Amino acid sequence: MADEDEENTMNILIATDCHLGYMERDVVRGNDSLVTFEEILHKAKELAVDFILLGGDLFHENKPSRKTLHGCLELLRQYCMGDKPCPVEFLSDQAVNFGESRFPIVNYEDPNFNVGIPVFSIHGNHDDPAGMGNLCALDILSVAGFVNYFGKTTSLEEISISPVLLQKGATKLALYGLGALRDERLHRMFVRKKVSMLRPTESKEDWFNLFVLHQNRAKHGPTNYIPEQFLDDFLDLVFWGHEHECIIEPCHNPVQNFYITQPGSSIATSLSQGESVKKHCGLLKINRRNFKITKVELETVRPFYMEDVVLSETSLNPEEPEVSKQVEAFCSEKVEAMIERAESEHTGNPRQPDKPLIRLRVDYSGGFDLFSTVRFSQKFVDRVANPRDIIHFMRKKQVDKKDFK
Amino acid sequence: MADEDEENTMNILIATDCHLGYMERDVVRGNDSLVTFEEILHKAKELAVDFILLGGDLFHENKPSRKTLHGCLELLRQYCMGDKPCPVEFLSDQAVNFGESRFPIVNYEDPNFNVGIPVFSIHGNHDDPAGMGNLCALDILSVAGFVNYFGKTTSLEEISISPVLLQKGATKLALYGLGALRDERLHRMFVRKKVSMLRPTESKEDWFNLFVLHQNRAKHGPTNYIPEQFLDDFLDLVFWGHEHECIIEPCHNPVQNFYITQPGSSIATSLSQGESVKKHCGLLKINRRNFKITKVELETVRPFYMEDVVLSETSLNPEEPEVSKQVEAFCSEKVEAMIERAESEHTGNPRQPDKPLIRLRVDYSGGFDLFSTVRFSQKFVDRVANPRDIIHFMRKKQVDKKDFK
Ligand SMILES: [Mn+2]
Ligand SMILES: [Mn+2]
Ligand SMILES: [Mn+2]
Ligand SMILES: [Mn+2]
Repeated sequence: MADEDEENTMNILIATDCHLGYMERDVVRGNDSLVTFEEILHKAKELAVDFILLGGDLFHENKPSRKTLHGCLELLRQYCMGDKPCPVEFLSDQAVNFGESRFPIVNYEDPNFNVGIPVFSIHGNHDDPAGMGNLCALDILSVAGFVNYFGKTTSLEEISISPVLLQKGATKLALYGLGALRDERLHRMFVRKKVSMLRPTESKEDWFNLFVLHQNRAKHGPTNYIPEQFLDDFLDLVFWGHEHECIIEPCHNPVQNFYITQPGSSIATSLSQGESVKKHCGLLKINRRNFKITKVELETVRPFYMEDVVLSETSLNPEEPEVSKQVEAFCSEKVEAMIERAESEHTGNPRQPDKPLIRLRVDYSGGFDLFSTVRFSQKFVDRVANPRDIIHFMRKKQVDKKDFK
Repeated sequence: MADEDEENTMNILIATDCHLGYMERDVVRGNDSLVTFEEILHKAKELAVDFILLGGDLFHENKPSRKTLHGCLELLRQYCMGDKPCPVEFLSDQAVNFGESRFPIVNYEDPNFNVGIPVFSIHGNHDDPAGMGNLCALDILSVAGFVNYFGKTTSLEEISISPVLLQKGATKLALYGLGALRDERLHRMFVRKKVSMLRPTESKEDWFNLFVLHQNRAKHGPTNYIPEQFLDDFLDLVFWGHEHECIIEPCHNPVQNFYITQPGSSIATSLSQGESVKKHCGLLKINRRNFKITKVELETVRPFYMEDVVLSETSLNPEEPEVSKQVEAFCSEKVEAMIERAESEHTGNPRQPDKPLIRLRVDYSGGFDLFSTVRFSQKFVDRVANPRDIIHFMRKKQVDKKDFK
C-alpha cells in the first residue's frame, strides 16, 4: 500500500472496550479507564486521523455514573471538537444509518457542532440499549452531538445492515456496524439466514467493506458465539470487539477470504491470561481496496503480570513440617520478581500507573496446604494495585475460566 | 420603560422548577414535565429572547433517568442551538463565573458550539451536586456545552458571589446566582455575615442587579427559610426559585426596596393549593435600571383543580342512615363539576393533556363516616389523571402540610 498517497487514504483510529468507569470507586484503580481513553483520543489527535471507530463497551456499566459520563463528555469535548475539517465525504442516507436517533445527521456535518475528529461507535453488551425508551449511554453522547452511534437494531426477528458509505479521494469505505446482541439470538438469526448486509448497488467492487461487531469470537458453547464463517465473504476486514485480548494484527480467514482484527480492550477487566497481553489501539489505513493496520501501543495501561506455578513441580515437599511457610515465601519471591519486572518495564509515560496488577496462580495439588492470602496481601498493599487477589489457588490444571467481557 | 428601545433592552425568558422526569413512569402523566419544558423553550424562541434564565430544579431526580436526560438534551439541542447571534456581551471573568467547570467559557462564545439561545441556570435542591466529583445533572449539560451552569459554591463556611456581568447596548446586568443550599445552613451563614455579593468596582450605579436563588421563601421554621431582608438591598430584582406557586408579578419589598418575582414551577409536583394556581413563565425586559415582567401563560400544563368541602357545613346529616352513600354522591358531583370545568377551561393547546388532576379535600369532622376511595377512584379512572388520590379526607381545618418542593 502506497504510504504517500494521503489524499486517497482514509486514516482511522480503531479501539474498543474502553470500559469507562471500571472500578471507579477503587482509590488506586478508579481513574484507569479514563486515563487510557484520554491516551487513545490523544493519539488520534497526534496521528491526525480522519475519524475514530470504536467497537463497543465504551462504558463498563449500562448506567454509567455521573462522574464517568461527565469524564467521557469532557474528554470528547477536549479532543474531538475543533477546527480540523474532516476530509471524509458522507455518501449514504443518514436517515437510514442513524434512523434510531432524534437527529439523524453525522455530527461533523451538523452546522451547530464544530467537530474535529468524528467518533463512530456501536454499542457493546455492557452499554447496550435498555429501559425506558430503549436508550443506551451512547444515545446520550449522540444526542449531545459528540458521537455518531450506529448499528442499533430493533427487530428481534431479522436484521439488515445498511452500511455507512464514506469516501476520501479514490477510497470508498462501506462501514457495516452491528451493536451487541445476545450471542445465542444472533447465532440463531444467522442460521436462519435472517441477517443480511446490504451492498451499494453500483460499482460494488470499488468498495472496501469493513464490518464492526461486538460478540463472542471464541466458542463458549454450541451457539454462544459467532463463527467467523457466518460472516459475509464479500467483507474485506472484520473489526471484532468484545474479546479483550489484543490480537490487532490482521488475521486472515482463508475460507472467507477476509481479515479479522481484534484490537482488544484498553483496560484489563479480569485477571486472566488474555488481559495480560500488551494492549494496543490501531491506525487503520485504507487505500482503495487495500489496508494496513499499524499497532499503536497504549502506554498508560496499568502493568499487569501473571504467572502460574505448580507446587508439585518445584523442590518443595508437602510432607515437610512448616511447608506452608515455605510455599508462602516461594510465592512472595515470585510476586517480588513480577513487581520488579513491572518496574523495569514501565513505559516511561508519566500517566502510566506504577502499582502493577499481579496475579499468581498456584496449583497446590499434591497435598500442599494453603496459606492465608489475607496476611499475604498485607505485604504488598502499597506496591500492588490488587493486593487482595494476587494469589489464586487452584488444583490440577483447572481450566482457566473465561471471564465475562 | 420604553418598549421600542430594543437595542438597549435585554430580553430574558425566566422559568423555574421544571422538574423534568417527575412521575416519568406514570403512563398518563409520564411526559408532562418534558412537554411543558418544550413549551417554555418554544416560547423563548418565539419571543426571540436573548437568553433563558432558570431557577433550579430543572430535574426532579438528583440522578435523572437516561430517558429524562436524553429528552432534556434533545430539546435543548432542538431549540437552543442555531444561528441566531446572541447580542449580549459577556464582560466578567468567565474563569470566576464558571470556575467549577472544566470548560469555563459561556457556551455562546465557544467556537465549537453554535448556540442560538443560551441557557443560564443555577441548581435546585432536587438537582444539587452530590456523589463522586461533587457533580450534578447540570454539570452534564454544561460539559456538553448546552447550559451555562453558575452559582455552584463549594465552601461550607462562607460564600462570596461574583456576578455574571452582561451588557446589551446601554443596559448592564449584574446577574448573581446561588444554587440551592440547605436552608438552615444558608440562614446561619447570613446571620454570621458570611454571605457577600461582590459588586463591579466601577460605575456601580449603572448596573441592574438581579439575584437568582433557590430556597424556602415561606417560613417553615425559625431558620428553615431565607427572610427577604437578609438579601442585599442594592439588588433591583430577586428571582426566587423553589417555591412552586406562581407569583411572577413582581412584588415590592418596601424595606429592602427591591422586587421579588417568583415564577413558580412549570408542573405540579404536589396536589396543594399553591400548585393549582395557573402556571406561567415570564418575559423579563431590562432597560438600563428599569425592568418589566410580562406573564406568559403555560398552556400545556395539565389542568389541576382543587376544592375543599366541609361536610358539617352542608345539608348532609351524619345521623341519617346511609349518609356515607350520600357523602360519596355529593363528592362525586363536586368532582364531576371540576372535570367539566377542566374541559371548558382547556387552553386549546393540542399538547395540553385532557385528563385533569383533581383534588377534593373533604373535612368529615362532625361524625361523618368515610367512604371507600378505592371504589370512588374507579368511577374516574379514565377521566382523571390521578384517580387514586382525588379524595383527601381530613378533620377540622387540619393545616395543609407544605409539600417538599
Ligand atoms: Mn463486551
Ligand atoms: Mn468488553
Ligand atoms: Mn426546590
Ligand atoms: Mn422545585
